Amino acid sequence: MIDLQDRHFLSTLDFSVEEVRHLVRRALDLKARARDGTFPRSLAGRVGALLFFNPSVRTRVSCESAMTRLGGSAITINPGKDTWNFEVGDGVVMDGSTQEHVRELAPVLSRMCHFIGVRKSELITVGSARAEASADYAELARDPFLHALAEHGEVPIVNLESNRFHPLQGLADMATMQERLGEPAGRKYVLTWTWHPKSLPVATPHSQMLAAADLGMDVTVLRPKGWELEPAVMVAARERARSCGGDVTETDDPSAAYEGAHVVCAKAWGSLDYYGRFEQEAEDKAPLRAEWTVDEARMDRTDDAFFMHCLPVRRNIVVSDGVLDSSRSAVIDEAENRLWTAAALFAALGGK
Amino acid sequence: MIDLQDRHFLSTLDFSVEEVRHLVRRALDLKARARDGTFPRSLAGRVGALLFFNPSVRTRVSCESAMTRLGGSAITINPGKDTWNFEVGDGVVMDGSTQEHVRELAPVLSRMCHFIGVRKSELITVGSARAEASADYAELARDPFLHALAEHGEVPIVNLESNRFHPLQGLADMATMQERLGEPAGRKYVLTWTWHPKSLPVATPHSQMLAAADLGMDVTVLRPKGWELEPAVMVAARERARSCGGDVTETDDPSAAYEGAHVVCAKAWGSLDYYGRFEQEAEDKAPLRAEWTVDEARMDRTDDAFFMHCLPVRRNIVVSDGVLDSSRSAVIDEAENRLWTAAALFAALGGK
Amino acid sequence: MIDLQDRHFLSTLDFSVEEVRHLVRRALDLKARARDGTFPRSLAGRVGALLFFNPSVRTRVSCESAMTRLGGSAITINPGKDTWNFEVGDGVVMDGSTQEHVRELAPVLSRMCHFIGVRKSELITVGSARAEASADYAELARDPFLHALAEHGEVPIVNLESNRFHPLQGLADMATMQERLGEPAGRKYVLTWTWHPKSLPVATPHSQMLAAADLGMDVTVLRPKGWELEPAVMVAARERARSCGGDVTETDDPSAAYEGAHVVCAKAWGSLDYYGRFEQEAEDKAPLRAEWTVDEARMDRTDDAFFMHCLPVRRNIVVSDGVLDSSRSAVIDEAENRLWTAAALFAALGGK
Repeated sequence: MIDLQDRHFLSTLDFSVEEVRHLVRRALDLKARARDGTFPRSLAGRVGALLFFNPSVRTRVSCESAMTRLGGSAITINPGKDTWNFEVGDGVVMDGSTQEHVRELAPVLSRMCHFIGVRKSELITVGSARAEASADYAELARDPFLHALAEHGEVPIVNLESNRFHPLQGLADMATMQERLGEPAGRKYVLTWTWHPKSLPVATPHSQMLAAADLGMDVTVLRPKGWELEPAVMVAARERARSCGGDVTETDDPSAAYEGAHVVCAKAWGSLDYYGRFEQEAEDKAPLRAEWTVDEARMDRTDDAFFMHCLPVRRNIVVSDGVLDSSRSAVIDEAENRLWTAAALFAALGGK
Repeated sequence: MIDLQDRHFLSTLDFSVEEVRHLVRRALDLKARARDGTFPRSLAGRVGALLFFNPSVRTRVSCESAMTRLGGSAITINPGKDTWNFEVGDGVVMDGSTQEHVRELAPVLSRMCHFIGVRKSELITVGSARAEASADYAELARDPFLHALAEHGEVPIVNLESNRFHPLQGLADMATMQERLGEPAGRKYVLTWTWHPKSLPVATPHSQMLAAADLGMDVTVLRPKGWELEPAVMVAARERARSCGGDVTETDDPSAAYEGAHVVCAKAWGSLDYYGRFEQEAEDKAPLRAEWTVDEARMDRTDDAFFMHCLPVRRNIVVSDGVLDSSRSAVIDEAENRLWTAAALFAALGGK
Repeated sequence: MIDLQDRHFLSTLDFSVEEVRHLVRRALDLKARARDGTFPRSLAGRVGALLFFNPSVRTRVSCESAMTRLGGSAITINPGKDTWNFEVGDGVVMDGSTQEHVRELAPVLSRMCHFIGVRKSELITVGSARAEASADYAELARDPFLHALAEHGEVPIVNLESNRFHPLQGLADMATMQERLGEPAGRKYVLTWTWHPKSLPVATPHSQMLAAADLGMDVTVLRPKGWELEPAVMVAARERARSCGGDVTETDDPSAAYEGAHVVCAKAWGSLDYYGRFEQEAEDKAPLRAEWTVDEARMDRTDDAFFMHCLPVRRNIVVSDGVLDSSRSAVIDEAENRLWTAAALFAALGGK
């Protein structure tokens, strides 16, 4: 009997492989129940607070819709827009621009709401602007606000995307592969880097790689040299994969990677080596632009693979229209599964 | 048996006169049921996504309140503020400022929500600023984002005001006239242009004129020369009116228009001829300021007409305090009917 | 039998002491019912409109959560961001930046929603900026928008913080003292001014002082000379306190104030004398910074007092970490009581 009640959900790594798979099964079960009209209203009167420091479409709509369908409700807060700024430092003399400490915010929201979701990624940028380097990557990867919430909160904290992980995306990807492949263990999963005008965060590819690892897949991370994912996360993913019969390897050779793949998941991300030197990175990756788009020719080298992407996706940059508009694309189903996995998680954290 | 389930609602012109009248009857029925305590909770667990590219009071509050009262829920999104920007062009290489294509947005929201409402009017301006001409009127009147949503969405799309139509305002105006007149067919309806500091959109007067036409009224559009509504919409309104015993004519003579009127509906709008030359328009319409306000003297020439306006209204510019604060004013009832018509529409699209 | 249905809630002074205490009892009753699983869903299908002209965490989340738990729903509006600006002046020719008169806004929201909450404080500032003096204090203290809403609205208007009062904070403070003290009458309550980088509003200390007065406590307002609260509110508080066996006095002597206190409530506020001369005020209050922080030494002079603050609080400016992180602090319970008092109020206004 798996009971996830009252747990924080900061990363899928906080849960055992068995627990993560349990959530995915519950999500697919809820999806089926929505279709046959037996969706449970098990969170009636329950309220989730959702703090979005960054823009969102899928995450916000899936979380709000999930709470509503379960009979509960979500309160979306845009800190810094409809609130003031928050402090995380211990012992700080607060005579500056921060007006409320997480030591108050976390327990206060806990008393008013049944869980707290938070999206806070300093690496995300809006529009076509480049990110500003507000700290070094090692500092940001500690996700101090998220962990302070978890330390001081009295209810489950749910990571809606931090600098390091986007675990709800991971769950949705697992559900999608389960649906399409039946038994994903042992199948070849390629996570391919792509060129993008901006230096995007690594949270999503980290959680996507972990998703395939937790299904026991044969995971290949395809990226140019210099665009490696975080070494500690690579190690963790490899351990998880091996524990259930899979593996994680990496390469910069597209031909080898696509060969025999059953799943191609595309994602752009910024280099950790270049972090903070965004102009330099943009210059050095310019020659890669033409060579990394997922197109029909590359997909033809696979073993009839289907295509995944977390969305939003830049068409004809990350992936060609030809792939995205074909039956090979699973991106809409993948996005839909954000709804059912969020619902499964919220129900589980609420003990229902 | 009229079944509107799963239809898009982009303009009242997408529906037959009989279908539109059916929605109005359902709205008045729901209004009565709210008062006698038998309002149906027929949309329990249903979720509407509401995309507001422009500010709103009545539309947003009426839609959210309608969903809540029916047992469902609405998720309001402010694109460009709490999201990134969206692309509609086919085949675009997305290396600019748009980050998500409607080809993804529409089906994704469709999987998470039961309908999608959208307000997107490039012609609306905030505060006292003039509009920027981002394209010519003919281009804007195609409402490309709205129609792309409708093409790629898998659930009903509801127009919450586009460049060309504001059909929910039309329904509310129909309900209000039905309530006040009993049988509106054959009664004289005057839609009068008024001076306003800005060049406002034509969507609302288009849908208001169509509302009166669909009730078979004798419609007079009163406006100065140069401020004609869109010719194609005039033709459509005239055809609809004639099909049910009414007519649509236009004039620039206030005396003739007010004479014998049973309804006076005021609305300011910008000139399509001047579109993009807003400074010139402001200069040329300055002399009209004093002459077009709806005041007591003008109302006295009517056949005891009542006064309508979609709100918000600039007092003592569009209409005098004397008219607005008198028993002749129907504007609060008209606004209230936004709630019941929205509820009727959402219930009908949901098959309930 | 106390019936508060359909009343406005602009200040606790609008209600008798008995009525205010009744709301507090109902709040604590609801809190108990939430714990034993018998929380009532008495506002099913009811909708509250919440207008936030200023940022909020506790007020917004407590009000939304309260409505949801009672089975209803709240619609949060951020005027000036997702709407245009509103006019309150009578007889104004609206050719400027305001686009909708409260004479329309109030009845329109009344038709769509069952109550209207509003936070509008011209004195609140965001970030570290100083306030702008948009008028003199006497003018602002009239709270013209709030009172215009109350005059023209057809449903209860709830003050979510105006320039002069923050009555929901007052209710929560009463509930907290009731919980901690059992019978607060006759116990010593100290409201102490503290230094703060900004000139904060007086609405909260006004309502906090009134809360203690309505419990019949022995109220001491401790502040430097020049930082007196509004004289008319002092008089009203003294009358209310005396009517139930307490009193209200003021002093600038911390030693006398802390001596024998059972409750210490800290709050920073700006000087009414200096109002509009914020630079001058900042200069003249600079020497007070070191002397007014609530710290362990000061708390030790009390009769084992507990510590209250409305939050957000600037740590080590208003109060030391040592006090705030000790068992003497009641601030989290006080914030939680915002939820139950809001719920009690909304239920009572709705007649349930």
